[in-house]
Amino acid sequence: MQFDRIIKNGTIVTASDTYIADLGIKDGKIAAIADALTGADDIVDATGLYVMPGGIDSHVHIDQPSGDGIVMADDFESGTRSAAIGGNTSILAFCMQEKGDSLRHSLDVYHAKADGNCHIDVAFHLIVTDPTPSVLGQELPALVEDGYTSFKVFMTYENLRLRDDEILDTLDAARNTGALVLVHCENEDAIRFLIGQHEAAGEFSAKSHATTRPIAAEREATHRALSLAEIVDTPIVIVHVSNQQAMEEIERARVRGSKVVGETCPQYLMLTADDLDQDELEGAKFVCSPPPRDKESQDACWDGLERGVFDLFSSDHCPFRFNDPEGKLNEKGKKSFRWIPNGIPGVATRLPILFSEGVQKGRIDLNRFVALTATNHAKLYGMYPQKGTIAIGSDADLALWDPNKNVTITNDILQQGCDYSPYEGLEVKGWPVHTIVRGKTVVKDGKVTGQKGDGKYLPRQKSNLVTSKPV
Amino acid sequence: MQFDRIIKNGTIVTASDTYIADLGIKDGKIAAIADALTGADDIVDATGLYVMPGGIDSHVHIDQPSGDGIVMADDFESGTRSAAIGGNTSILAFCMQEKGDSLRHSLDVYHAKADGNCHIDVAFHLIVTDPTPSVLGQELPALVEDGYTSFKVFMTYENLRLRDDEILDTLDAARNTGALVLVHCENEDAIRFLIGQHEAAGEFSAKSHATTRPIAAEREATHRALSLAEIVDTPIVIVHVSNQQAMEEIERARVRGSKVVGETCPQYLMLTADDLDQDELEGAKFVCSPPPRDKESQDACWDGLERGVFDLFSSDHCPFRFNDPEGKLNEKGKKSFRWIPNGIPGVATRLPILFSEGVQKGRIDLNRFVALTATNHAKLYGMYPQKGTIAIGSDADLALWDPNKNVTITNDILQQGCDYSPYEGLEVKGWPVHTIVRGKTVVKDGKVTGQKGDGKYLPRQKSNLVTSKPV
Amino acid sequence: MQFDRIIKNGTIVTASDTYIADLGIKDGKIAAIADALTGADDIVDATGLYVMPGGIDSHVHIDQPSGDGIVMADDFESGTRSAAIGGNTSILAFCMQEKGDSLRHSLDVYHAKADGNCHIDVAFHLIVTDPTPSVLGQELPALVEDGYTSFKVFMTYENLRLRDDEILDTLDAARNTGALVLVHCENEDAIRFLIGQHEAAGEFSAKSHATTRPIAAEREATHRALSLAEIVDTPIVIVHVSNQQAMEEIERARVRGSKVVGETCPQYLMLTADDLDQDELEGAKFVCSPPPRDKESQDACWDGLERGVFDLFSSDHCPFRFNDPEGKLNEKGKKSFRWIPNGIPGVATRLPILFSEGVQKGRIDLNRFVALTATNHAKLYGMYPQKGTIAIGSDADLALWDPNKNVTITNDILQQGCDYSPYEGLEVKGWPVHTIVRGKTVVKDGKVTGQKGDGKYLPRQKSNLVTSKPV
Amino acid sequence: MQFDRIIKNGTIVTASDTYIADLGIKDGKIAAIADALTGADDIVDATGLYVMPGGIDSHVHIDQPSGDGIVMADDFESGTRSAAIGGNTSILAFCMQEKGDSLRHSLDVYHAKADGNCHIDVAFHLIVTDPTPSVLGQELPALVEDGYTSFKVFMTYENLRLRDDEILDTLDAARNTGALVLVHCENEDAIRFLIGQHEAAGEFSAKSHATTRPIAAEREATHRALSLAEIVDTPIVIVHVSNQQAMEEIERARVRGSKVVGETCPQYLMLTADDLDQDELEGAKFVCSPPPRDKESQDACWDGLERGVFDLFSSDHCPFRFNDPEGKLNEKGKKSFRWIPNGIPGVATRLPILFSEGVQKGRIDLNRFVALTATNHAKLYGMYPQKGTIAIGSDADLALWDPNKNVTITNDILQQGCDYSPYEGLEVKGWPVHTIVRGKTVVKDGKVTGQKGDGKYLPRQKSNLVTSKPV
Ligand SMILES: [Zn+2]
Ligand SMILES: [Zn+2]
Ligand SMILES: [Zn+2]
Ligand SMILES: [Zn+2]
Ligand SMILES: [Zn+2]
Ligand SMILES: [Zn+2]
Ligand SMILES: [Zn+2]
Ligand SMILES: [Zn+2]
Repeated sequence: MQFDRIIKNGTIVTASDTYIADLGIKDGKIAAIADALTGADDIVDATGLYVMPGGIDSHVHIDQPSGDGIVMADDFESGTRSAAIGGNTSILAFCMQEKGDSLRHSLDVYHAKADGNCHIDVAFHLIVTDPTPSVLGQELPALVEDGYTSFKVFMTYENLRLRDDEILDTLDAARNTGALVLVHCENEDAIRFLIGQHEAAGEFSAKSHATTRPIAAEREATHRALSLAEIVDTPIVIVHVSNQQAMEEIERARVRGSKVVGETCPQYLMLTADDLDQDELEGAKFVCSPPPRDKESQDACWDGLERGVFDLFSSDHCPFRFNDPEGKLNEKGKKSFRWIPNGIPGVATRLPILFSEGVQKGRIDLNRFVALTATNHAKLYGMYPQKGTIAIGSDADLALWDPNKNVTITNDILQQGCDYSPYEGLEVKGWPVHTIVRGKTVVKDGKVTGQKGDGKYLPRQKSNLVTSKPV
Repeated sequence: MQFDRIIKNGTIVTASDTYIADLGIKDGKIAAIADALTGADDIVDATGLYVMPGGIDSHVHIDQPSGDGIVMADDFESGTRSAAIGGNTSILAFCMQEKGDSLRHSLDVYHAKADGNCHIDVAFHLIVTDPTPSVLGQELPALVEDGYTSFKVFMTYENLRLRDDEILDTLDAARNTGALVLVHCENEDAIRFLIGQHEAAGEFSAKSHATTRPIAAEREATHRALSLAEIVDTPIVIVHVSNQQAMEEIERARVRGSKVVGETCPQYLMLTADDLDQDELEGAKFVCSPPPRDKESQDACWDGLERGVFDLFSSDHCPFRFNDPEGKLNEKGKKSFRWIPNGIPGVATRLPILFSEGVQKGRIDLNRFVALTATNHAKLYGMYPQKGTIAIGSDADLALWDPNKNVTITNDILQQGCDYSPYEGLEVKGWPVHTIVRGKTVVKDGKVTGQKGDGKYLPRQKSNLVTSKPV
Repeated sequence: MQFDRIIKNGTIVTASDTYIADLGIKDGKIAAIADALTGADDIVDATGLYVMPGGIDSHVHIDQPSGDGIVMADDFESGTRSAAIGGNTSILAFCMQEKGDSLRHSLDVYHAKADGNCHIDVAFHLIVTDPTPSVLGQELPALVEDGYTSFKVFMTYENLRLRDDEILDTLDAARNTGALVLVHCENEDAIRFLIGQHEAAGEFSAKSHATTRPIAAEREATHRALSLAEIVDTPIVIVHVSNQQAMEEIERARVRGSKVVGETCPQYLMLTADDLDQDELEGAKFVCSPPPRDKESQDACWDGLERGVFDLFSSDHCPFRFNDPEGKLNEKGKKSFRWIPNGIPGVATRLPILFSEGVQKGRIDLNRFVALTATNHAKLYGMYPQKGTIAIGSDADLALWDPNKNVTITNDILQQGCDYSPYEGLEVKGWPVHTIVRGKTVVKDGKVTGQKGDGKYLPRQKSNLVTSKPV
Repeated sequence: MQFDRIIKNGTIVTASDTYIADLGIKDGKIAAIADALTGADDIVDATGLYVMPGGIDSHVHIDQPSGDGIVMADDFESGTRSAAIGGNTSILAFCMQEKGDSLRHSLDVYHAKADGNCHIDVAFHLIVTDPTPSVLGQELPALVEDGYTSFKVFMTYENLRLRDDEILDTLDAARNTGALVLVHCENEDAIRFLIGQHEAAGEFSAKSHATTRPIAAEREATHRALSLAEIVDTPIVIVHVSNQQAMEEIERARVRGSKVVGETCPQYLMLTADDLDQDELEGAKFVCSPPPRDKESQDACWDGLERGVFDLFSSDHCPFRFNDPEGKLNEKGKKSFRWIPNGIPGVATRLPILFSEGVQKGRIDLNRFVALTATNHAKLYGMYPQKGTIAIGSDADLALWDPNKNVTITNDILQQGCDYSPYEGLEVKGWPVHTIVRGKTVVKDGKVTGQKGDGKYLPRQKSNLVTSKPV
């Protein structure tokens, strides 16, 4: 056989298997796996490295409108570059409908931002903020057919949140079209109420971001979202779960017979509300929603990754520059936590953190690492078997990991638009030294070797959760 | 000692004790309990009877506006008369604020309806439908001081439901004034959604009332109400709980440390959704919200009465005439379940049903019967020790029960405004043969011996749940 | 009316009611309660005092054989004297069968110890250690008829523990005779295993008593006891519950439909395993089984008293002198935790601790205090209505409490045989200033005013849990 | 490349992936997987077939002593033949220690039975019935080193059950040697007690087998086993779980942080206690322990397979002939359920049942089928990556499935020693048409093409549950 490229002698890891073999790539796809392959000029020596499916980060915000004068720190070029640095080969970004706009128009805007600018492959979730009858009844069915097979709704944020009737209608549209709905679960009214109390008490610092968004507000919304989905009878994804109580809601729903997917993120494993409670304005760096909780919640989230409460581990990358009038420390943000943009960067650090803290410390094994970071995302969001695994016929999207490479995370190595990382100074063991998209190396040893435009837009199939079973 | 009246030789029952004694009444109050009393001309022989605190029904709708051309079947005269027939000596009726009205005005209207017309004592819960800042900030504090110490909010019914922000503000007002909030927990949007589906499918019969208000909608709202109360940090009452899943929410909230009181009603012990699914329009007789569920839910509710999930057993008396253009079978109600007025009568049957099905069948003992039907209501709603028990100094509000009297329930013996009873034909063992309000017999052997005006309006203290503990 | 004695103007408290009245006593029984009584020479002024049912402590070990050379610190004279000091008017002591002995013989021995020596009334639970066919089939039925209607079995202690088959047979005998079984739930084999590990590791100090009897061992045995009772279909009492996990087992069993009573004790509210971990041999003072746990378990036990997981609050008084070769610091006990006698004194401190820490701090109200310390014990163990309440015809067993009396607990005021109290130095607010047994004052202001022999042996009815319901 | 054999154009299925490819076998191992392979004379056309890892049945009883005059229906020849018919390529059989025997001796006996007689590969779990210090301290460590890395203990059966102290010691030996313990969880004493009650009531028919082994007895033992393992701090496998309550115990243990593996079997999906309740002696065919339960339990077990409560799906093949004096209907067995040998055949039907009822009916997908029937067994029991997957370097143990082949199960096609199948007449869709052991076809289209001796003994590594994690 002839190959374009052979990855020699690596330890191949999939969501179920780990074994040493050669891997042959042809036309950007995996063509052969064998104990010994020949027949290519381009040979990558992977001795001592893990050859894993490239990471798929299915929860990434890029270049998303964020209110008056606030600008996200990443455009598609920088965002996908940083993702590639961190071992990812695909991302799922959000395309947010602005109220009054059609979804089609919103997609036009995002495609214009993304097309030709990406280092790795990109697909879009829709964020539905204006679920009019025409949006739900006409646009969505057509868009699902076109490969936009998932959408997110918000139960918080003043201009994004949907009321229960709107959520029901959106879930119903998903059910009818075979799409999948992601839900951001926090009770906006409860948060507003607590913000009012804090403001009345003269509490404006960043730590109030955490106390105004308590676990009860997340648990409430989680149970409500699950109940609405139960009533409509359609599966849902509960994104960025931060604590034990919300996890219990997911487990209870499963026992009731619902199909539910849970996601957690690095911030809920590595940060706590104490990080928001720092001198000066440093706490603003850690403002995201739901907020990081406490040590006990971190343990719960680890436990959820191990026990299968969570099937997805994503970054919820949502970057704002810190010391910047268009970022965290905008004029109003300096004065009150209420105006600090919500979100933290993380697309580059997601995989090394889980590898180092999870795999190296014995909490999860390599196969679960692959499932949580790539395979499950691909299967859930209609990208499998093209993406998310190492199998004959799949895209040759690979990350080669050196398990013994020690790296201290600093913002400058992440090559992102943001001016800080919440994990600055964290020491990790294990690093993706080689990122390959459809057979082409886009990052090697921390250097970008591809160029923008290497990444393509990726239309998607329906989720394996909503399609009938495989036989 | 001299008494106005002596009840001789009865078996006195309180929420904790059962013993044979004589009971002396003076000035409408209980003045002495002893193995043998003399010193009164008026002697009631209670040999073989239980002398119990008269029932307090804390959940009664009377003469409440019910929409276009629909009229409740009871005014205060007939409602309190029927209550007395059924062994009650006090009721707590709802005074509903109509949108735009002040609470004070609403109270004026209800006092005008009630004052001078009642056979037994009456107090009012407020129903808050329009929680404006002036209602919450000015009216409520004054009214709580005046003895209106509890109010109900609705999470369902198009014109009554409050949004979460309104519920939070109302709970906060309750917390600040030391009042107690009752919550009707059903998710209106979910119900609307299901009604839409049923109507689209051409399903209009009464049984659809049950399928459009599923357990999930009640469970969701219950958890939400509990979560909002947890965030505000104030106790609440979950009224008319119909099933196991909602009960679990109450128990989970208690484990989290919340103060929650649960209430169930006879319809959830005795009726099922099958009662709504009958030929002709018969099912309309059983339309109430939440709807009766199934046998398993009945068992759960019994279990909740036994295990202490519930502290209150009320009627949720909400009477509409059946064969009446102003009642169940109004023009629109004949055509669709959606227009059948919600509610069933029950103020007269609550106590005999619980006595016969609960006490006589060994599910609960006599003391628990008294607690569930009288003492707990009095303590919870600020009427204790004046009402709800047999103790020195308390009002001589008594019901004398003949435990061996067999009665077949028919509507005509209930003396209510309604033209039917949902329990028509039910045979019960045990009946209140003598109802005494502040020392005066108002019903004897099924005959009214008092007159309207015997019952007084009863201002209330704060709930024992919100006042500091007694020492 | 003529009375032997009138308690004037006190605040009478029962398990459900609180009110000011006079109380008339005749022939040792309560003859009248009224707003004003006259007709007695002997008048006790109770103004400002709570007149409560005297405490019933249903879990007391006195003069029980405790192994080689170890002697309990109390005989019936000192044990009942100390109980009276602490506001009790009855105790239920254990009569332990020694292997090979008949139960009848064991009772003869205990009656010889108790009869004529008690300051307050006494009844016996049997401890069954040798459940032979003749014991279960012949002795027990006769003894239950004679008024010994409850017995305890042990799942721990080398010479006392029963195997599962023996527990099943004993439960079955209880079912057949209408008796009630109390179970001490700890897995002996697990404890033995852990003791072996500790000894192998050279760990012999008192703190190892706690680590060798972990929560898992108690939870396991609790679930097992509940399961065996479920299989036999008979109610049981889980005594001295120390933690949340065991409480959950009780609640789960109730949800499954079992009749279960839970008991906790002062040591699980006030002590922790840290008390065992002290310099010198001080830790020995706190060695009891199950061992005290941690702050979180204390909170759970308080919660269980409030929420109704527990119906009984007992002392598990099991006194050994500390600095005594026949007590805690016997020769072997000085060398290894394994030989420190298990048990701590507490019959005198149970009520003041619950009053001060529970009632005064607002955790429970006065009525629940009475239920937990007297009424429930009487009802559960077949002593009601003779004992445990204030009602016409009941024994005039009373404790008059001064809620404002501040007392620092020291061993010398407790008048017990033990040379220490685990609560030495604890400051409590509220104290029983007057203890009255069947109308006679046996303790007043901390001084014994009666004499041994005032207390009588008390045969018992069957438990209200096993008799058919009251109507 | 040169191969001994190529499987062409099949749909390869692993625990995570499904894709079409050719598969090249060399020296009994998988040497290459590619879109197109050439270079072998022996080509198997797998077009339209699923190429799956051969089944591993890790719970099989063969030729095990079963008491007086009772003989198991399969020896290693017939048992492994039938297994191969049903798509299996390895089994884990039990080697039972007889009391007084050394484990080494027991193994000698079993090796003599198995060696040279097997059609597929075989390894052994040890059944420890006599855990003496020398067995646990000396034999086990050596045997674990030799590749016998798992053992089973029984909590039921009069001659097999271990007491809690013996289970603790055995778990401790497992912990010290890195072995894994499987536990059969039923409370023997409870069963004995119920058998006594049934016999006393004259109930002897097969249906009493189910009523004497109730869910409570299984739940109790399950919680106990989990608690003992928690105390020793070592992972365990709960085998043949039959119902929701036992499943909950597993889930609770996981939430507590324990490592637990759950197994269920076809009988708990397909049979109920009603199958035991048949005329004549037919019910004896379905006597196994735990007994089949009810429809609700079946649903729970399916749910457990879907939700991940169970990681293993095994047969618990334990065959006795029906109409045979050495089988079910032995002389005593005809007279009382107590003497009917416990166990049913199932090694041949396990996979077709799960494929047809699980995969074809959309309950689980193909990848989960592979995980539940092969991969998880291999990983858990130290046979991975040699066994249980399709990966380069793994043994070429394969089953080729025709998903469209309809088969009616009858005992004669199963080629087993037993004279009946409990699933006689069941129609399944999907059948393993080709079974390949280390590259050699041993069964093709229902015909044995290999011979005894094709199967080898398989020493095992330690479980992935007990070894440190892979990196
Ligand atoms: Zn979000
Ligand atoms: Zn997000
Ligand atoms: Zn209502
Ligand atoms: Zn109502
Ligand atoms: Zn004990
Ligand atoms: Zn004790
Ligand atoms: Zn077994
Ligand atoms: Zn088995």
